[in-house]
Amino acid sequence: MKPSTVKGTRDFTPLQMRRRNYIFDTIKEVYRLHGYSPIETPAMEALSTLLGKYGEEGDKLLYKVLNSGNFMEKALKGSSEGPCRLEASSAEELSKALLPGISEKGLRYDLTVPFARFVVQHQSELAFPFKRYQLQPVWRADRPQKGRYREFYQCDADVIGSDSLLYEAELVQMIGEVFARLAMRVKVKVNNRKILAGIAQAVGCQDKLAALTVAIDKIDKIGLDGVMAELRERGVEEDAAARLVPVLRIEGDTGARLAFLDGFLSQSPEGRRGIEETREIFGLLARMEVQVPCELDLSLARGLNYYTGAIFEVKSEDVPMGSICGGGRYDDLTGIFGLKGLSGVGISFGADRIYDVMEEAGLFPPALDSGTEVLFVNFGERERDWTFAPMSRLRSEGISVELYPSAVKLGKQFGYADSLSIPYVAVLGENEHAAGKLLLKEMKTGMQQELSLEEAAALLKRKRAGAQEGGREEKD
Amino acid sequence: MKPSTVKGTRDFTPLQMRRRNYIFDTIKEVYRLHGYSPIETPAMEALSTLLGKYGEEGDKLLYKVLNSGNFMEKALKGSSEGPCRLEASSAEELSKALLPGISEKGLRYDLTVPFARFVVQHQSELAFPFKRYQLQPVWRADRPQKGRYREFYQCDADVIGSDSLLYEAELVQMIGEVFARLAMRVKVKVNNRKILAGIAQAVGCQDKLAALTVAIDKIDKIGLDGVMAELRERGVEEDAAARLVPVLRIEGDTGARLAFLDGFLSQSPEGRRGIEETREIFGLLARMEVQVPCELDLSLARGLNYYTGAIFEVKSEDVPMGSICGGGRYDDLTGIFGLKGLSGVGISFGADRIYDVMEEAGLFPPALDSGTEVLFVNFGERERDWTFAPMSRLRSEGISVELYPSAVKLGKQFGYADSLSIPYVAVLGENEHAAGKLLLKEMKTGMQQELSLEEAAALLKRKRAGAQEGGREEKD
Repeated sequence: MKPSTVKGTRDFTPLQMRRRNYIFDTIKEVYRLHGYSPIETPAMEALSTLLGKYGEEGDKLLYKVLNSGNFMEKALKGSSEGPCRLEASSAEELSKALLPGISEKGLRYDLTVPFARFVVQHQSELAFPFKRYQLQPVWRADRPQKGRYREFYQCDADVIGSDSLLYEAELVQMIGEVFARLAMRVKVKVNNRKILAGIAQAVGCQDKLAALTVAIDKIDKIGLDGVMAELRERGVEEDAAARLVPVLRIEGDTGARLAFLDGFLSQSPEGRRGIEETREIFGLLARMEVQVPCELDLSLARGLNYYTGAIFEVKSEDVPMGSICGGGRYDDLTGIFGLKGLSGVGISFGADRIYDVMEEAGLFPPALDSGTEVLFVNFGERERDWTFAPMSRLRSEGISVELYPSAVKLGKQFGYADSLSIPYVAVLGENEHAAGKLLLKEMKTGMQQELSLEEAAALLKRKRAGAQEGGREEKD
Repeated sequence: MKPSTVKGTRDFTPLQMRRRNYIFDTIKEVYRLHGYSPIETPAMEALSTLLGKYGEEGDKLLYKVLNSGNFMEKALKGSSEGPCRLEASSAEELSKALLPGISEKGLRYDLTVPFARFVVQHQSELAFPFKRYQLQPVWRADRPQKGRYREFYQCDADVIGSDSLLYEAELVQMIGEVFARLAMRVKVKVNNRKILAGIAQAVGCQDKLAALTVAIDKIDKIGLDGVMAELRERGVEEDAAARLVPVLRIEGDTGARLAFLDGFLSQSPEGRRGIEETREIFGLLARMEVQVPCELDLSLARGLNYYTGAIFEVKSEDVPMGSICGGGRYDDLTGIFGLKGLSGVGISFGADRIYDVMEEAGLFPPALDSGTEVLFVNFGERERDWTFAPMSRLRSEGISVELYPSAVKLGKQFGYADSLSIPYVAVLGENEHAAGKLLLKEMKTGMQQELSLEEAAALLKRKRAGAQEGGREEKD
């Protein structure tokens, strides 16, 4: 009887919204400061735009929208008059046969394909390199589980139409800036698909790139013998596996790793290009004085089926959690829609995981706990009318205020303030009104002060500024 | 071949996004200042939540989402094994018969029903009165036409759980504040469903409320004889129509109209309550010193099937256009989901129409024309590296800057700035670098100045503040 949200989807309450918006606003502000422009695309795209772009599994996870009205008429085309009949050898066959006729639109599965469609459709209006950001929900008919939802936001920034490595460096700089503003401690891992391809070339199994990266990723967990067994299982020849051993034993910082790779990949032009790109990116990061810790990590192999150069991934150092941001360089995003030769590079923040880390680490600023900053107490019609001018005045200073709607018992009015975590209550009785003042009571401490409007506004702004600081300062 | 957006839906380019966000941010800020809290609900709701809430026509306009995977298996239930067959007397019958089995979810049609569902689902966590705002897209499978889209944003604020008329006044105050901030000239029309019901009672045809309001609305266009003919046609008795004549001839300001109604509705308790409410609302608006022009307009009859008290509508005085904001009091929003007795009142801004008015009247601040505020010219690797520190410095002052990615001809770099309407270009050559300065060139005037970083930041912030003013000042 009681209505509820659809499985795998969520409502967001005011507190959750203020915290989510804090994350989104931080990301958007950093994007804006670096010259990225916002765009939005529709929730629904033609199925012809979406199908085949996310692999067979992705096609299944697309939400399909039923054609409007009498959808079977279109599906049956000519034979729509009079009685009609459908037959198939199984329900599954019938589903497959019916689908293309009854559905032409699907819900956005990510922001990348709609962005590619956008660039192709609007190419004549755009200046390249085109730096865009996009924060919108996407939908996937995935099995819901902890931290995985059927509706969730993606927060992407991409540059398209330039192969300058400046953008790789800029994106890492932006990652550092976002997490610094959120007071989150993170590490940025960088890899390069060309280095991985070079390694595969150097050990002599270019067709086993995925197996090699899995092996590199597991060395810390299962040790050399375990990795060797796994490589055998995945069909990597014994001598190729043996040649991989120095890579599995790689040590030292990014400089040392690159120096090792100089030797190891000396015979692979693609590998050498990967090293060169990586060195250039780390050099730029140093000269840009990017503070966030970055390191070359050969085990990073996300998006191998579409990234063609640098690959990024960000891990929280506060809370164990999957990747909270990722990205990379892809050389032919718009090729799927017939516009060749545009190289792109981009990043995407995982807002839900960032939220979970910040909540667990207590990093949300206390100012987000409440919307309204001052509740004006209602003592009856005459006193109520006195509140109008002071409320307008405080609002004109950017302070959120409201009046309790009726002159009920004070306990009830204070209870309302309490349940909304409103930090201050303002009392305006005969004396205060005559003196042009307010009695401002801080709910947490019970402390009250009689203040002029100027003083009250100044105090409230000062308090808010303090409460807007991230949670880290308070704890350290 | 070239991909495109689905019919009736739109992409938003960076310029459109900045302008739309200007409207959305203004609305959100005013909502926040008055103590309204943001919530969001999922795009998809159970069809059982949506169906039957928008009338028969609305049910047809709901977008239905196809069940995932082998949707026919569920539809056929037990008989899913082996060959299957569907028969119906027509395609339409088949569509009707299939629909409940193959689709259980629909896309949000408005924000009101999801809000009602939210309140019922979360009632134990909420403090009442609950003041919420919600800005999200909705979807309707409507015939697209000028200004009507299949995906569009609604911008709602509602208070639920109080019948205080303070909220009616507060919402009108907020309407005034939003349009003042947008530099739009508007008029707020106020009516009350109880007054309309009282009029119907007074003339003796309570069952013909709709016909009477249509008549009152048309008096200016078709005159008294036309209205009388129309009333006859709609089945209003001759003597009832005659008794309506004084209402059709009503004149004067809100005070005069209310005074007339005092007499006309003296025998209708409901009508008298409507007058009393209206007088109270206008009284509150006067004492709150709300500046936006407001008037009682008896022809205003929006949402008669759900509003139960005050009704609001806002018209632009700049550009002829339909209603750009509306709302009213409804007494039983959550009753449809089994939670009785919660009175609500709300407003909703029509962002698309507001956008159109502002564009036509030239009211968007020039600062929105561009995202990036300064393009740093790229003279080659050495000079490029010199830009990193000044760029970070300007960004730390909130100024959006970017570097052209390669050292191509200046003409091309300036062309990029031009096509993005970037107002300033910064040049950092040997001399400027040595002096710790920038050469800042204003693109519009060609004027250039050598400035320290402090001076440059101050100039850019001053310019932006000027360009952030609404368009009205520039013209008057």
